[in-house]
Parts: sequence; C-alpha cells; structure tokens
Amino acid sequence: MTFELHPQLAKDCLPVIDLMLCRVLLMNNSNFPWLILVPMRENMREIFDLSREDYMLVMEEISTVSEKFCEFSKADKMNVAALGNMVPQLHIHIIARFKNDAAWPNPVWNADLPPSQYAPEKAALLIRELRRIF
Amino acid sequence: MTFELHPQLAKDCLPVIDLMLCRVLLMNNSNFPWLILVPMRENMREIFDLSREDYMLVMEEISTVSEKFCEFSKADKMNVAALGNMVPQLHIHIIARFKNDAAWPNPVWNADLPPSQYAPEKAALLIRELRRIF
Repeated sequence: MTFELHPQLAKDCLPVIDLMLCRVLLMNNSNFPWLILVPMRENMREIFDLSREDYMLVMEEISTVSEKFCEFSKADKMNVAALGNMVPQLHIHIIARFKNDAAWPNPVWNADLPPSQYAPEKAALLIRELRRIF
Repeated sequence: MTFELHPQLAKDCLPVIDLMLCRVLLMNNSNFPWLILVPMRENMREIFDLSREDYMLVMEEISTVSEKFCEFSKADKMNVAALGNMVPQLHIHIIARFKNDAAWPNPVWNADLPPSQYAPEKAALLIRELRRIF
C-alpha cells in the first residue's frame, strides 16, 4: 500500500498524528477548531469504497476523535462530514462549533471569512495537546 | 422507547421508510436528491451519544443508503454529514451531488436558491422507487 496525501490537503492542513487507519490533520484555519481524518488507503473517494473492515475502523476513529475533540474544545456542537466535492481523496471533516463562532449556525464551508492561519507557535502548541488526547 | 421526529424535520421532509434503526426521510427540495437518516432514539445529539451497538448499526445504514442512493441517482459524488447546528435531533444528511447541480462544488446548505418543493405526484413516485431500493 502506498498512500499519499492529496496535495491540497497537505497545503491547507498541518499533520497531527497517524491513528491505526486515519491520518489526523489540523486545518490551518484559526476561525474554527477543525480536524480532518484521511484514511491511509489509495484511491478512496466515497465512504462505501472502503472495505468492510476499514469502514468499521474509520467509523471507530471518527467517533473517538469527535468525542475527544468535543471534550477538549468544549464545543457546543460537533459537525462531522464527508463531502469531497473539491478534493477527491476521501477525507472526513470534524469541526468543533460554538454558538458564538463566526459562521454559526451555518456550516463553515461557505463562510465568507478572511483566511486566518494559526501563528506557528500556536499551531505547534495545539498539535502537541491534540497528540496527547488521541 | 418513545421516538418523536423533530417538528422541523417533519415539516421539511417526507417519510420514505423505517430501517432497523433509522427513519429515512426525503428532503422536500427538488434542487438536490437529498435524504436524511434519523436514528429512532430519544435525546441523541452527537454521533457519539449513540450506544456502541446503535452506532455500528447507524454507520451500517449510512453506508448502505449512501451506496444505493448513489447508484440510483447516478451521482458524481455523495455528501454525507451530521451537522445539527439548527435542529438538535441527531440526523445525517446523504445528498447526491452532480457536477452540474445548482451549488456545485460548494456544499448545499448555504446555497442561495429559491426553495423548490417536489410536485406531490413526483415526490410520491420518487418515494415509491426509493422504498424498492432500500
């Protein structure tokens, strides 16, 4: 198996940790605490492209990461989504939402906000903390 | 167990079929072929609120419905999401997307489109067809 992260995800995100099947990425957008899970398998596009075994594992990892990230971020609501209209490599968004965040109650994707990357030291600290909880 | 569909979902959607754990609804919006799965359990908000057993079953039903609905609709891409920022009852969107649909490649939720309900006979026909495939 050779897995390569899609260049767009590599560009937009920072690596956090590799779980059993998914690579966990931090979206480099400080407007929202936003993780992305990428199953480390080639040529996956839809959730049902995964083998049954992989599907179960991915679902397990989605549940664990959502719950821990919710606790960690003290979110009001988690948004979990597999869209992939722009980046064809299967990836799952796990976003911590707050009633006072910049897009609430709308989804984050079309939010008309200035891009806002993390300061490098802030990202490094956050990634260290996330590694501890996963 | 007493399960009651959230009034907003009851208002926006048409019932299709009850699976083992989820009620399948058709979003009454003819802009996009759009199903919603609602686990028939009380007081669920996040996917990780489900018991382990229910979680597995919901994930199974999401996979089956996405795959069959993709085949049926001949979609270019499926969008699968649990958001729930507005309607607190846990529900999962399964939307068939096309490269020539009105919102592509953006997500459907913030699309600025005139609401477009199905004509009643069209909805009835679609629901009959969907019942056959699930």
